[in-house]
Amino acid sequence: MTTDFTATRALFDLPEGMVYLDGNSLGPLPRAVPDRVARTIRDEWGGMLISAWNKADWMAMPRRVGDRVARLIGAEPGSVVMGDTLSIKVYQAIAAGLDMNPARRVILSDNGNFPTDLYMAEGLCRTLGADYRLKVVAPEDVADAIDDTVAVLMLTEVDYRTGRRHDMAALTARAHAAGAIAVWDLAHSAGAFPVDLAGAGADFAVGCTYKYLNSGPGGPAFIYVAPRHADRAVPALSGWLGHAAPFAFDLSYRPGAGVERMRVGTPPILQLAALDAALDVWDGVAMADIRAASLTLADRFIQGVLAACPDLRLVTPRDPAIRGSQVSFAHPEGYAIMQALIARGVVGDFRAPDILRFGITPLYIGTAEIDRAVAVLATVMRERLWDRPEYRERAAVT
Amino acid sequence: MTTDFTATRALFDLPEGMVYLDGNSLGPLPRAVPDRVARTIRDEWGGMLISAWNKADWMAMPRRVGDRVARLIGAEPGSVVMGDTLSIKVYQAIAAGLDMNPARRVILSDNGNFPTDLYMAEGLCRTLGADYRLKVVAPEDVADAIDDTVAVLMLTEVDYRTGRRHDMAALTARAHAAGAIAVWDLAHSAGAFPVDLAGAGADFAVGCTYKYLNSGPGGPAFIYVAPRHADRAVPALSGWLGHAAPFAFDLSYRPGAGVERMRVGTPPILQLAALDAALDVWDGVAMADIRAASLTLADRFIQGVLAACPDLRLVTPRDPAIRGSQVSFAHPEGYAIMQALIARGVVGDFRAPDILRFGITPLYIGTAEIDRAVAVLATVMRERLWDRPEYRERAAVT
Repeated sequence: MTTDFTATRALFDLPEGMVYLDGNSLGPLPRAVPDRVARTIRDEWGGMLISAWNKADWMAMPRRVGDRVARLIGAEPGSVVMGDTLSIKVYQAIAAGLDMNPARRVILSDNGNFPTDLYMAEGLCRTLGADYRLKVVAPEDVADAIDDTVAVLMLTEVDYRTGRRHDMAALTARAHAAGAIAVWDLAHSAGAFPVDLAGAGADFAVGCTYKYLNSGPGGPAFIYVAPRHADRAVPALSGWLGHAAPFAFDLSYRPGAGVERMRVGTPPILQLAALDAALDVWDGVAMADIRAASLTLADRFIQGVLAACPDLRLVTPRDPAIRGSQVSFAHPEGYAIMQALIARGVVGDFRAPDILRFGITPLYIGTAEIDRAVAVLATVMRERLWDRPEYRERAAVT
Repeated sequence: MTTDFTATRALFDLPEGMVYLDGNSLGPLPRAVPDRVARTIRDEWGGMLISAWNKADWMAMPRRVGDRVARLIGAEPGSVVMGDTLSIKVYQAIAAGLDMNPARRVILSDNGNFPTDLYMAEGLCRTLGADYRLKVVAPEDVADAIDDTVAVLMLTEVDYRTGRRHDMAALTARAHAAGAIAVWDLAHSAGAFPVDLAGAGADFAVGCTYKYLNSGPGGPAFIYVAPRHADRAVPALSGWLGHAAPFAFDLSYRPGAGVERMRVGTPPILQLAALDAALDVWDGVAMADIRAASLTLADRFIQGVLAACPDLRLVTPRDPAIRGSQVSFAHPEGYAIMQALIARGVVGDFRAPDILRFGITPLYIGTAEIDRAVAVLATVMRERLWDRPEYRERAAVT
């Protein structure tokens, strides 16, 4: 097992002196990205112009880069395609799932799901009409709520607030036993720990790439369609690049082969280039090693904070089997505490109403950073530094 | 009137010796883009990390850049927001339009619309069920087909094949008289000639930015919602960034104020930065001057080609009132002819089954380029250069 990630750390451009524990929100800049994007702009767009769609293979990028992501999430080759945003990909997945289960009307989710997943499901149900509805239960009640009314089980594997992790294989099996389709959101899973979509039997999965995969702000999302469904999943967002022959310019839609049908419009080539370069970081990294290091670092952080900051309440499960790669604490003054931390170079983030989140990312975070974060947090709490007015003013984006 | 665009031409990085008449497919690289994107990557993403959402004002970019686009299409300030792809924006516009017209079931369009608009409408009708349907007529039959069954009139102003231009104001008025909502696709309008969305009374409009607005491959799309509708249009793609309070992380969706509700997921910041820099080209350019120059250059091209190439059939209307900023000719060997042209440095494109397209973009194209294009095309036709085997092999992307 490797827990020394000095080599991968050198692949990132991190501000001097900052302890960055927010890679679960926006991953830092991989050093390979600026040159790659610059070349895409100057040599491909500037130099080849329209011919770059063929010569620089832009048109194939969503699938080619999708295959690179597939390897990180236990997906079969050819089962993942990049594009759009996570919200759009959620819509595509649940729409296809509902379509495959036409006698049922319920999308089941939990209140720990990221809100956009719930919102997109709400919007889809409204468009579908006919009694379609989103049912939201507590995370711990999901298993029991899977019954024969459920068309689609839509869950985010790791809770964005608490870091609590669902058992993907068990819940997928339970969904299948009840005749439901399982859609997994891997926003806080992909790049955080080993995911085994194929082994779990997931039907659809979606995720973003700007967190643990470090693709940069607004990087393209992905969608996975299990190969057994890929040629029968009906795209609700039937865009031309998901057509069987986009450049025939037919007047009627015919879905493309396999996961290609989940493409919609023209792919964002600059963001795909950034993602492609960012994925180089994973060459030669075993996800099992990342996971082992993440757990070790997280335990060190939890123990340190609990010992030094009795007012902070741990909301992340201690059991490694049911947590992701973040550690969260609750405190009524969470927002101001986080601002005081950030002012001292320890960057996590805040999630309403009272959650302090810290992403554990061994690719570029080690024990020294964890120990410094504990020490600074201890100082902020002990000296009540969060009680200063400058830390209480809310920014637009938290 | 200015027809000398030497100054704007210097703002583009064009390959030496190439006559680029394909800016209606992918605009060339504005010189300001590489540095701007590099700064966004290094200074904002790399240097500010997560705080750039506030400090670099990333979260406001879709609206701020939307206002810059609004000025180019005659839209009211605050009525345009950037994001996603044109296909997604079409879906949002027609879904909102249908929702505002609940007693009707027909989306009316024409067979000169770009296929993705038709495909997205097909997909939406399928999801809606309940007899919703897309009715497609010939472009010249649109006016007469607007009756009291039509919920939404969905048209692309300029035909991507022929360059034929609809009368936006007249057709919108006719739609309104019949109780229909008018959705306009400005893919081949924005940046090509003056558009007056507010004056025409359009209800919704959408467009892409990688053609005449030169934002680069996969640049963000835009959506316009008439201010009179903005607070009642119901978003079908109800993503978290269209929520009234995205960072409250409510469990239920509440649409944001005005056009903000048409935001969906995390905006593509690198592509938005490229677009923002590309829009600088328009500072100090009057769209009326662009139009005047475009018509002058197009007429010169048409006259030259018709005189020298009797086998090419002009399919673009001669009347300036009913054409956009491209010139198209038909020929059964169109594909091979275009390949022969491209091999000689004159770059247009081909659209199945037989259309040669030439985009007229006075920002960086002048009479010298037009004359050279005519001369090369004349040579290709006179010497039947297109009949060589190397020009007949089809590429994936045409």
